Amino acid sequence: MSAAETWLELADEDPFGVHNLPYCAFGQDRFRWPGVRIGDRILNLAAAEGRDLIDAGGAFLGQATLNRFMSAGPPVWRRVREGLTELFTTPRHREAVEPLLLAVGDVRLDLPFEVADYVDFYSSQEHATNLGRLFRPGGEPLLPNWKHLPVGYHGRAGTVVVSGTDVPRPHGQRKSPDDPVPTFGPSARLDIEAEVGFVVGVPLQAPVPIDDFRAHVFGAVLVNDWSARDLQAWEYQPLGPFLGKSFRTSISPWLVPLDALDAARAPAPPQDPAVLPYLRAADHYGYDIELEVFWNGTLVSRPPFAGLYWTPAQQLAHLTVNGAWTRTGDLYASGTVSGPTPDQTGSFIERTWNGTHPLQLADGTPRTFLLDGDTVTITATAPGPSGTRVGFGEVTGTITKPE
Amino acid sequence: MSAAETWLELADEDPFGVHNLPYCAFGQDRFRWPGVRIGDRILNLAAAEGRDLIDAGGAFLGQATLNRFMSAGPPVWRRVREGLTELFTTPRHREAVEPLLLAVGDVRLDLPFEVADYVDFYSSQEHATNLGRLFRPGGEPLLPNWKHLPVGYHGRAGTVVVSGTDVPRPHGQRKSPDDPVPTFGPSARLDIEAEVGFVVGVPLQAPVPIDDFRAHVFGAVLVNDWSARDLQAWEYQPLGPFLGKSFRTSISPWLVPLDALDAARAPAPPQDPAVLPYLRAADHYGYDIELEVFWNGTLVSRPPFAGLYWTPAQQLAHLTVNGAWTRTGDLYASGTVSGPTPDQTGSFIERTWNGTHPLQLADGTPRTFLLDGDTVTITATAPGPSGTRVGFGEVTGTITKPE
Repeated sequence: MSAAETWLELADEDPFGVHNLPYCAFGQDRFRWPGVRIGDRILNLAAAEGRDLIDAGGAFLGQATLNRFMSAGPPVWRRVREGLTELFTTPRHREAVEPLLLAVGDVRLDLPFEVADYVDFYSSQEHATNLGRLFRPGGEPLLPNWKHLPVGYHGRAGTVVVSGTDVPRPHGQRKSPDDPVPTFGPSARLDIEAEVGFVVGVPLQAPVPIDDFRAHVFGAVLVNDWSARDLQAWEYQPLGPFLGKSFRTSISPWLVPLDALDAARAPAPPQDPAVLPYLRAADHYGYDIELEVFWNGTLVSRPPFAGLYWTPAQQLAHLTVNGAWTRTGDLYASGTVSGPTPDQTGSFIERTWNGTHPLQLADGTPRTFLLDGDTVTITATAPGPSGTRVGFGEVTGTITKPE
Repeated sequence: MSAAETWLELADEDPFGVHNLPYCAFGQDRFRWPGVRIGDRILNLAAAEGRDLIDAGGAFLGQATLNRFMSAGPPVWRRVREGLTELFTTPRHREAVEPLLLAVGDVRLDLPFEVADYVDFYSSQEHATNLGRLFRPGGEPLLPNWKHLPVGYHGRAGTVVVSGTDVPRPHGQRKSPDDPVPTFGPSARLDIEAEVGFVVGVPLQAPVPIDDFRAHVFGAVLVNDWSARDLQAWEYQPLGPFLGKSFRTSISPWLVPLDALDAARAPAPPQDPAVLPYLRAADHYGYDIELEVFWNGTLVSRPPFAGLYWTPAQQLAHLTVNGAWTRTGDLYASGTVSGPTPDQTGSFIERTWNGTHPLQLADGTPRTFLLDGDTVTITATAPGPSGTRVGFGEVTGTITKPE
C-alpha cells in the first residue's frame, strides 16, 4: 500500500503512510485518548470506535492509553488495522473520518501505554565488547555467559517518560581510581543509549515459547536509556546498574505495530556457539531498523539494529523461561545498538571512546559527554512494503541543570 | 494500649492487638476490599467508611487495595489509626463494628497494595560478606562501594505475590566451573532470602531527603526473595541478578504501619567510614524486628533486622538522590537479613555454607537447598508499647514441580 493511495494528501515517501499507522496516547488539557497517526495527523480512536467507524470490541472506549487494546491480541489488532486501512483508503469514509483528525502539532503526546515492568537487555556484541573494554580494562571484554544468554536486568518503570520530557542531570556518588573516597555531585559523564524497545500486549503467566513472540508482542518504540557513567561505574558491582540508569528513560510516543514491520524482518546474525533449544526459533530473524542519533542537531551516529546478536523473540523467551509472568505494558529494550564502526555506536562513551576522542558538532563546539542544555534526538526508519519507509518518529530529550 | 483494653476478647500478648492494626486487602469470590486486622479478625474498611465509622476522606470507598489510603499521607494515616483505636476500645462502638468483622480464616488474603517498582537492597554486612565469599572466592568479599552506599538493584514488580502462593521451581541456564557449556533445566539450588520490605505511600518527583522518610513511607511487610543460586551465579555478571530472582517474590499480606513500630525503633549500627551528607540522618535508627525462618516447620534461623548496616531511611534517600521518582506502592526490600552467627542467616546458601553443612529438619531429613514440596515460612515480631509485641504475621510459600 503506497502512501498515495489514501484520500489524505500524503507524499509517497511519507514514513507515516497507511503502511505504518503507529499508535499513541494524546492529550489536550487534562484529557487523554488513544490515537493512531496518519501523515501528520492523529485519529482519535475512542471517538472513531464510539461512532462505529472501527470494530475494536470496546478496546478504545473510555481508555486513556493503549493498554486494553494491546491486551486484546492479534485477531483484534489485525481487525483494527484492516479497518483503519479501509477508513484511510476509501474516499467514502472521508466525510466521517476527517472531523476526528487532529494535527500532531496541536496535541500533547503522552506515554502511549502504562509501563508495567521495564527490562533492559545488552544484546549488541559490539556494544558489550566496547563497554567491557572501557569498564573492565585488562579483562576479557565479553564475559563467558554473553553468547549463551541475552544478558539483561530490570530497570525503573516509574521513570520511563515520553519523548520531549526534560532530563535533569542526576546527582550521585562517583569515585575515580585516584580518589581516596567517593564524592557527591552532578554526574560529569552523562550519556545516552540508543535502543529499540518491544512492548508486551498479551500477558502470560508462563514462559513464552520463542515461536510465540508475535502472539504476545504488540509493537516497538525507540528508547533512550540515559546513563550516568560515573555513577554507574562506582555502583554497579556486584548487583548491576541502579542509580546510573534509574533517573529517566525516554521513549518515543509512537508505538509501531509489529504488523507494520513485516517488510523489515531480516535474518539475524548467525550464533556460535549454538544456543540452547529454548532460544532456537523456527525463523531466526531481527528487524532492519536504521537508527540515527542527533546531538544538538548534528548527526553523530547511525546505529544498525539489524546487527544485534540477540533477537526480540529470544529476549522474550529468555526473560520468561524461569516462569516469570508478563503483563500488558511490559517494556523490554534491546540494549544499546552499536555497529562495528565508531559512527555506528549508540552511546557517547563509545562514540568518543571514554571522552578521549571528542566529537565536533555543527556549531563548531566539541563534545565528549552531555552538557546542560544539550538535546539528543534519536530517530529511526525501517523498510516498509513497496519501497516505503516505516517511521518511528523520534525520542528526544534536553539535559537541564540538576533539580 | 494493651490488647486487653479493647472490647474484643484478646489475650494481652496478642501480637495483633490495638497497638498493631496492620492493613490488608482481603477478598471473597471476585470481590476485594481494604481491611485492618484486630486479633484474628478483619474489619472491612470500605464498609466502615461507608457507615461513617471512620473519617478517611474516601480513602477506602470503592477501593480494592490500600494504594489510595497509602497516598493520602501522615495526617490521614494518623486520623484513621486514632479512629480505629477508638472504635476498638470504646464499648459503645461494639454494636456497629462487630457486624463488619470477618474471621481471618474465612477470607482470601490478597496483595495488600499494587506494587509499582520493586527494589531490592543488600544491606546486611554479614550477608554481603558471606555471599562475596561464596560467589567470588579468593576475592575481597565486600566490594569497595559497599560501605559508601546501600547497594541495590531493581527487581520484577509483576511477580511479587502474596504469602501462600505456590512457587514453581524455575527453569534456567546454569554452568558450574567444570561444565564446558551451560545446561538447561530446573534449578538445583533453590534458596530463600528473608527480608523486610518498606512501602512508599506518598509519592514524590524529587529526591526524598533522609529526614523525610516518615512523610513518605507508610509501612512494612515481610519479604521472601526466592533465589535460584545456580541461575544467578551464571547470569549475574556484569548487570546483576535477573532470572535467578524474577520468577517469584513473596510478601506477607499484612502491611504494618510505621506508626505501630515506634517502640521498635533502635539505634542503627555505627557507620565507618562516615557516609556522605545525603545519607546522614538527624536520628540514625533502624527497627528491632526479629525474624524467624521455618523450613517445613523446623525453626532454622532467627535473623535480626536491627543489625542491618543501612537503614530504611538511608535506602530511600539513596534510591531517589539521582532524581528518580517514587510512586505509591513502590516496594523496597532490605536485602537478606543475616546476623553474625550461622543460626542468624537469612538464606540457606549461608545457613548450609553452600550446601556443605546440611541442616537436619525435625522429621530427621537433611536439607541443603529446597526440594519440591518444601514449605518455607518467615515470621517476625517487634517490640510494641508497654511490653507488647507487634506481629508481622507470616510470608509462606511451597515449592512445586516446574510448570
